Amino acid sequence: MAKSVTGPEIERLIQILARLPGLGPRSARRAALHLIKKRETLLEPLATASREAAERVKVCSTCGNVDTSDPCTLCADPRRDESVLVVVEDVSDLWALERAGAVNCRYHVLGGTLSPLDGIGPDDLNIASLIDRATAEDSTVREIVIAVNATVEGQTTAHYIVDRLEGIAVRITRLAHGVPVGGELDYLDEGTLAAAIKSRSAV
Amino acid sequence: MAKSVTGPEIERLIQILARLPGLGPRSARRAALHLIKKRETLLEPLATASREAAERVKVCSTCGNVDTSDPCTLCADPRRDESVLVVVEDVSDLWALERAGAVNCRYHVLGGTLSPLDGIGPDDLNIASLIDRATAEDSTVREIVIAVNATVEGQTTAHYIVDRLEGIAVRITRLAHGVPVGGELDYLDEGTLAAAIKSRSAV
Repeated sequence: MAKSVTGPEIERLIQILARLPGLGPRSARRAALHLIKKRETLLEPLATASREAAERVKVCSTCGNVDTSDPCTLCADPRRDESVLVVVEDVSDLWALERAGAVNCRYHVLGGTLSPLDGIGPDDLNIASLIDRATAEDSTVREIVIAVNATVEGQTTAHYIVDRLEGIAVRITRLAHGVPVGGELDYLDEGTLAAAIKSRSAV
Repeated sequence: MAKSVTGPEIERLIQILARLPGLGPRSARRAALHLIKKRETLLEPLATASREAAERVKVCSTCGNVDTSDPCTLCADPRRDESVLVVVEDVSDLWALERAGAVNCRYHVLGGTLSPLDGIGPDDLNIASLIDRATAEDSTVREIVIAVNATVEGQTTAHYIVDRLEGIAVRITRLAHGVPVGGELDYLDEGTLAAAIKSRSAV
């Protein structure tokens, strides 16, 4: 859009929105226009919410979660099982597990996966701090659940972490592979079907 | 997402982003996390840009465009042809025509289409101000291009406007129907093909 069509304020808003995942240039324009039309109910609240988030949100120095407190709500919650540590790639995975109510324990966010091609090595992920949490003298960790994505990068990272944890007296587990709940066999890949057969259970 | 997972600031940001067109709850969470991770390059600029837009953007009292000045840049531009008025449904249509560089004249934004079922009548659109612009004593308007969408609602609105403009000494035109540039005949609907044949031109 040429600068002459509208003021630089709208143009800047469009450019920022276009950098969000899931929004391209066209949908960013639609979103900006929608915001401008709903100034009081949407644009002003967005300005306030993003300012507050920018000022108050921090990364938990223990687990890598994002929250307004450090340690985060999950690390500070005394009702959570301290003996189990769920290792995830990203905060979004932590949120997904919490939405599912799948576990009630502590987390450790790696912040990505090993990717030599992108120059991401072990030092770029929160792996050293994971080893520290598992080996500290006052450590309460008895089990580490490696809950990374079932992708090549995720599994490579999982292998590396298992290697690094060797010799440490914690139980190391990983998520089960199998048929997703609600999934149809006909649409599943061979790897998933093979894993589901291999890990079949008695009924 | 339960409130215990993260602070209310992030939750509020997600809720606002989820109300943007093109973003659902899941993509809003991804977008919020992306913003938080890029605090300095994305979240803070978004806070500033949305605050500035909320404070400075206004609706042009002449044409209905959104801009930081009133009259807007387009209405105030002396190089534009004052004798032609392009009537569009929405500011996004005005932006689209400007991006295309299709015209260099004035606009009039209706702010929607007639929709009796939704309770949107002529008084809810900027139709009275259009008539005023066409009939004012010092009016320079010689042609009104009705550039509404080629939808049922758009065409209903176009018919209504043509009726209202009857007897006023301006030329009323509408956009051409035909094959979109780059379009394949096999994928076009019958109405478009019929219109393209009917309006065929000599080569």
